[in-house]
Amino acid sequence: MRYTTAGESHGQGLTAIVTDVPAGIVLSREAIDADLARRQRGYGRGGRMAIERDNAEVLGGVRFGRTLGSPVALWIANRDAANWREAMDPWGSAKGVEPVTAPRPGHADLGGVQRTGATDARDVLERASARETAARVAAGAIAKALLAALGVSVHSWVERIGEAATGPLDPANIDHDAVAASDVSCPDASVAAAMRAAIDRAREAGESLGGVIAVCAEGLVPGVGGYAEAGTRLDARLAGAVVSIPAIKGVEFGDGFAVGSRAGSAVHDEIVLDEGGRLRRATNRSGGIDGGMTTGEPIVLRAVMKPIPTLMRPLKTIDISTGEAADAARERSDVCAVPAAAVVAEAEVALVLADAYQDLLGRANVADMQRALAAYRERIAW
Amino acid sequence: MRYTTAGESHGQGLTAIVTDVPAGIVLSREAIDADLARRQRGYGRGGRMAIERDNAEVLGGVRFGRTLGSPVALWIANRDAANWREAMDPWGSAKGVEPVTAPRPGHADLGGVQRTGATDARDVLERASARETAARVAAGAIAKALLAALGVSVHSWVERIGEAATGPLDPANIDHDAVAASDVSCPDASVAAAMRAAIDRAREAGESLGGVIAVCAEGLVPGVGGYAEAGTRLDARLAGAVVSIPAIKGVEFGDGFAVGSRAGSAVHDEIVLDEGGRLRRATNRSGGIDGGMTTGEPIVLRAVMKPIPTLMRPLKTIDISTGEAADAARERSDVCAVPAAAVVAEAEVALVLADAYQDLLGRANVADMQRALAAYRERIAW
Amino acid sequence: MRYTTAGESHGQGLTAIVTDVPAGIVLSREAIDADLARRQRGYGRGGRMAIERDNAEVLGGVRFGRTLGSPVALWIANRDAANWREAMDPWGSAKGVEPVTAPRPGHADLGGVQRTGATDARDVLERASARETAARVAAGAIAKALLAALGVSVHSWVERIGEAATGPLDPANIDHDAVAASDVSCPDASVAAAMRAAIDRAREAGESLGGVIAVCAEGLVPGVGGYAEAGTRLDARLAGAVVSIPAIKGVEFGDGFAVGSRAGSAVHDEIVLDEGGRLRRATNRSGGIDGGMTTGEPIVLRAVMKPIPTLMRPLKTIDISTGEAADAARERSDVCAVPAAAVVAEAEVALVLADAYQDLLGRANVADMQRALAAYRERIAW
Amino acid sequence: MRYTTAGESHGQGLTAIVTDVPAGIVLSREAIDADLARRQRGYGRGGRMAIERDNAEVLGGVRFGRTLGSPVALWIANRDAANWREAMDPWGSAKGVEPVTAPRPGHADLGGVQRTGATDARDVLERASARETAARVAAGAIAKALLAALGVSVHSWVERIGEAATGPLDPANIDHDAVAASDVSCPDASVAAAMRAAIDRAREAGESLGGVIAVCAEGLVPGVGGYAEAGTRLDARLAGAVVSIPAIKGVEFGDGFAVGSRAGSAVHDEIVLDEGGRLRRATNRSGGIDGGMTTGEPIVLRAVMKPIPTLMRPLKTIDISTGEAADAARERSDVCAVPAAAVVAEAEVALVLADAYQDLLGRANVADMQRALAAYRERIAW
Repeated sequence: MRYTTAGESHGQGLTAIVTDVPAGIVLSREAIDADLARRQRGYGRGGRMAIERDNAEVLGGVRFGRTLGSPVALWIANRDAANWREAMDPWGSAKGVEPVTAPRPGHADLGGVQRTGATDARDVLERASARETAARVAAGAIAKALLAALGVSVHSWVERIGEAATGPLDPANIDHDAVAASDVSCPDASVAAAMRAAIDRAREAGESLGGVIAVCAEGLVPGVGGYAEAGTRLDARLAGAVVSIPAIKGVEFGDGFAVGSRAGSAVHDEIVLDEGGRLRRATNRSGGIDGGMTTGEPIVLRAVMKPIPTLMRPLKTIDISTGEAADAARERSDVCAVPAAAVVAEAEVALVLADAYQDLLGRANVADMQRALAAYRERIAW
Repeated sequence: MRYTTAGESHGQGLTAIVTDVPAGIVLSREAIDADLARRQRGYGRGGRMAIERDNAEVLGGVRFGRTLGSPVALWIANRDAANWREAMDPWGSAKGVEPVTAPRPGHADLGGVQRTGATDARDVLERASARETAARVAAGAIAKALLAALGVSVHSWVERIGEAATGPLDPANIDHDAVAASDVSCPDASVAAAMRAAIDRAREAGESLGGVIAVCAEGLVPGVGGYAEAGTRLDARLAGAVVSIPAIKGVEFGDGFAVGSRAGSAVHDEIVLDEGGRLRRATNRSGGIDGGMTTGEPIVLRAVMKPIPTLMRPLKTIDISTGEAADAARERSDVCAVPAAAVVAEAEVALVLADAYQDLLGRANVADMQRALAAYRERIAW
Repeated sequence: MRYTTAGESHGQGLTAIVTDVPAGIVLSREAIDADLARRQRGYGRGGRMAIERDNAEVLGGVRFGRTLGSPVALWIANRDAANWREAMDPWGSAKGVEPVTAPRPGHADLGGVQRTGATDARDVLERASARETAARVAAGAIAKALLAALGVSVHSWVERIGEAATGPLDPANIDHDAVAASDVSCPDASVAAAMRAAIDRAREAGESLGGVIAVCAEGLVPGVGGYAEAGTRLDARLAGAVVSIPAIKGVEFGDGFAVGSRAGSAVHDEIVLDEGGRLRRATNRSGGIDGGMTTGEPIVLRAVMKPIPTLMRPLKTIDISTGEAADAARERSDVCAVPAAAVVAEAEVALVLADAYQDLLGRANVADMQRALAAYRERIAW
Repeated sequence: MRYTTAGESHGQGLTAIVTDVPAGIVLSREAIDADLARRQRGYGRGGRMAIERDNAEVLGGVRFGRTLGSPVALWIANRDAANWREAMDPWGSAKGVEPVTAPRPGHADLGGVQRTGATDARDVLERASARETAARVAAGAIAKALLAALGVSVHSWVERIGEAATGPLDPANIDHDAVAASDVSCPDASVAAAMRAAIDRAREAGESLGGVIAVCAEGLVPGVGGYAEAGTRLDARLAGAVVSIPAIKGVEFGDGFAVGSRAGSAVHDEIVLDEGGRLRRATNRSGGIDGGMTTGEPIVLRAVMKPIPTLMRPLKTIDISTGEAADAARERSDVCAVPAAAVVAEAEVALVLADAYQDLLGRANVADMQRALAAYRERIAW
């Protein structure tokens, strides 16, 4: 299972195609749209989020609520496309359309015009926008549905927004309902209040904020991924996928950067036999991955998101049409999109895991995968 | 440019094939072997490093010191293969060979036998060993030679071993000779002393240590990588490559996890015109990558390595042949391999950058790439 | 440049995403739709072709008639989707919808239900339909526009329908206007008449017909493709692409299967210096590819298409719900789709060539590619 | 399962790495070397074949005769490397080494030097040589061993050398012992005699000959491959793989190009229930593939090989150092290598099939694949 997306932020909409999809995944329109809604919400979002109310239309690959085994095509219309019709016309003329010439620090604007030779940074920023991640979330919902059929669930939460932080939370103790109820996706109510306050202060200061998200996958069997080739290692694939989300500047697994300062016996998870006869780990400091494969314990990873590059109190830049100093363009007005990034990271994690399960169990259809999974569990007494 | 490796830790040797290699890269045997030597040294390595003294033999793709445009084949013989001939024979019999049945916490041993159905964990651990990274280093040396022809250099150093740490160092101030002279690859002599002391204490305690490494690439043009697709983003490719190194548990770019707590204006790098008329960044908090592309400032990334899983004071595990509690197998005796990991990370970074430059400039031969690079520089005034 | 498609034959429509698209390709809506129209026409097509009148809507990646460097999303609505809404509903119920249980010989029906576990062959045949190739044609039009900017054109014609055949035609003598004017895409009027007569006879007999198509690419520089790795060889990539078109049962380059019976001196094309100082071939029996690379002479390949599997006089099969002998399902009523296949093959050839040119010249934008092409031509005196 | 190769024709040897190899394939050194020997023999081969006597040394991925799940590294030493040490030295100097400047028609020589900028065509021809296919044959032997564990066998034979031809033979009637005993790999003794006579005449005339080979795979289950995406279709993958063999100018499946002239009822294979309750085809004109998937009947494909480009009566060319007309270089003296190509094609077919079976059954280890295959067979009553 892999995905490809297309579409610009103010174009007609976003397209995603998910390929290598096994037949027989039971899908629900509501589940896909629920993830899209989760991506849009969040304290600190600007006015556009209210406009968008994303829905994914399934344009291929699904019949009567089940995947056919064909690629799944998803379409998410941009609700305000009408206002941008002229400026984003595939076929009209640039005449009368104001170009963006003040590239924003922290964004793809400048590198993009250098790479492509564009004279209007809009040609770049429309695609480099975080809007594109809506398509990833829709694609990820297909992967989650496959994982659900294999007993695996993927969750996320927010651990930091600016200076307000929970510290690393134990996945076993996360109250997922509390996360869902929180407009900063933080299960700790008092830290959530501090996060909102931080966002308020940033908004007043014309600033933006980033933070730290956590993603957790549970219900895994051990041995998913690979140790024998760099490209099959599960952590490598997850790291690449999560860092492909715009604005993510780092990723860590389990205890992450903290293991750099500890002795080995305080890092590695001892192997024990549980009462059910399964080979488990006494701890899960590894974040559920050792040697490029799942251990069977929950996968836990964290990622850091930088603040949104578009500030109301704009940064200094150079106008590429004049070579003069200028204020950076202001394209969007969210103050903080960390809760959204957590939902996107769930999608990326789910897509990698779905593909890794297909490597283990075959790719053709869900029933055969389930049969192979049962045989695998029996073989390894899990 | 991509690589594939094969070979087991105590087999006859390691093979690497580097594919999609442009013709005309000037190579030096000494440069390849120097990187291999750098990977082997380091305070805290065990006795095997002395035995190995790796050399890479070029078995294809190079003639008279230049790449032909064919795949480059590299062979690194294992110096102590003779001692393991019987135990690692491709064709002989397992009879009389003691299996490894006590999987090590923190290693691929257990997940590997679950995945493959092996009954001897040696079938897994021989490949999951860090020994394999020697082949990556040799492959990376080819990439570095291409990058050198394009004006790009890649360096690394160590910022933390256990509790001894420099904090994030400014790449502009690194004394590369001091790094080269340090047996812990740390440019700060007093921290280096603390690192050695930490290693000594760990050894005495039967423990192992990890740490934090930094990799820096300089001489880059802006616009290398991509913003338009998840899979072309340079930071995503780098993150996947670096985390594919065994024992790496996290990666971050520029100011990394620290940007999660700061306001936008303290994170994004303002765009300025330098005296040479180039569009530069006033700071480099991004680590040289914005929007999935190079900014032209140095790429700076950090990665955390966990302690080596094999402890002289072994961890608890379960014997897979008996189901009884056991001490973990002791396969290797390094206390700390962080300086080695830095060299491996250089190689991974170089390979990703080489490929991304080929995307920009064409893949066929170095002279054409250099011509295209000159034209690109001229177009963007860099 | 690569493409991905989704969509079922009687679903709402077809989606294509073209990725790795350089910025700055000048596109025309008319050119895309003209290729779609060429795919639909042809003597021997059934009633559906009249209904469809395909148009491609560009939903991403293009602004003011130029590619942005983003993925290009294309949407081709199915004109008769309304009639199939209930039977092809992504979300409704299968209740009351008649399943297809008589798999057609020569089609994916049976293998598909075996692979996916479907009980209704419609779940398979909707995707396995030739309808999907409309999306490939739209994608190919993007590739053709890039190639046009690099001086390369791609054409096709029909050399055989059933027993009516021209024999191999010389690409240099093809009258492309005559091909365009012919409803069997055959430049030879008398053979075209025989083709129509063959189609008439087949229709009366409740039969279907296949044939042989030729594709030619002109304006190439030598050295495109690769000799050093199996996966980079241009002929291998072209063969894989052309055989991926449903119903194609063989492909050959230049004199093709005929070279198996000739001596070497009657096969290989001698190298000569033309009056312009270019190294040319005295003949083009190779079909423009030697050693996995272009020679600079026109690429010429031929492919054979089998007759359409759905016959009005149905073939024998087994009903998969009862296990009883049955007549095969009749899903579609074209007698002959060979002219359409030629247009699809053009698209596949164009997409492979575009990608191979990007390997040579870089992938970022058309202007840089043109500059690199000019330098390449100068270097090799072409 | 995929392979990568490296190595030049007169270098030290050839390297192959086979990746994504399931654990537990039982290998035999003799089987690998037997395929290598089959590749070398054949009436019409030159003197080098006697020198070579290839053996593959396994340098990784195999222990006690079973694959570990690691990449498999294979090394085939060039027996006459010593004679070429100076001319092919990776590190020495070109001084005193005669360059090849007369590119051979029909070979990669000219395109290669244009692409790479080489001034000595040896830099190209050493890799573009058919010698490289020895590495593919060794890799293919791994795939065949996996297929054998899944009940699948792959065979080949020769149907044409020059004007001597058997016509298409029925795979069911091939006497594989006769093929093995024939020095032209032709099961029909009288045609074999004609083939040898044709080779003798060609040798006397300073000519070379090509021909037509057939490859057959038996023991397949239906549903292997894919219908839903261009890149998963089995025939597309096979076509790409077979045409990647140097000198192959065309490929066809089943009745191939002949189906272009027939009516549908004379092409499609009706579906019947055999006495064992299996859904079979009454005929196998499709060559065992419909809709991109196996039908369960034997896969039959044919490929045409052009005559060897190096003629003893050399073709005309232009010397690239002087621009003057010249005789083409004479690098090698085989008159006909068609029997060798058949063995290489077997390897390519086996590698594609192995990978397609892994898609269906999972990729981790043979025992799990066998279990999944048994479940699949039971589900589809095969």
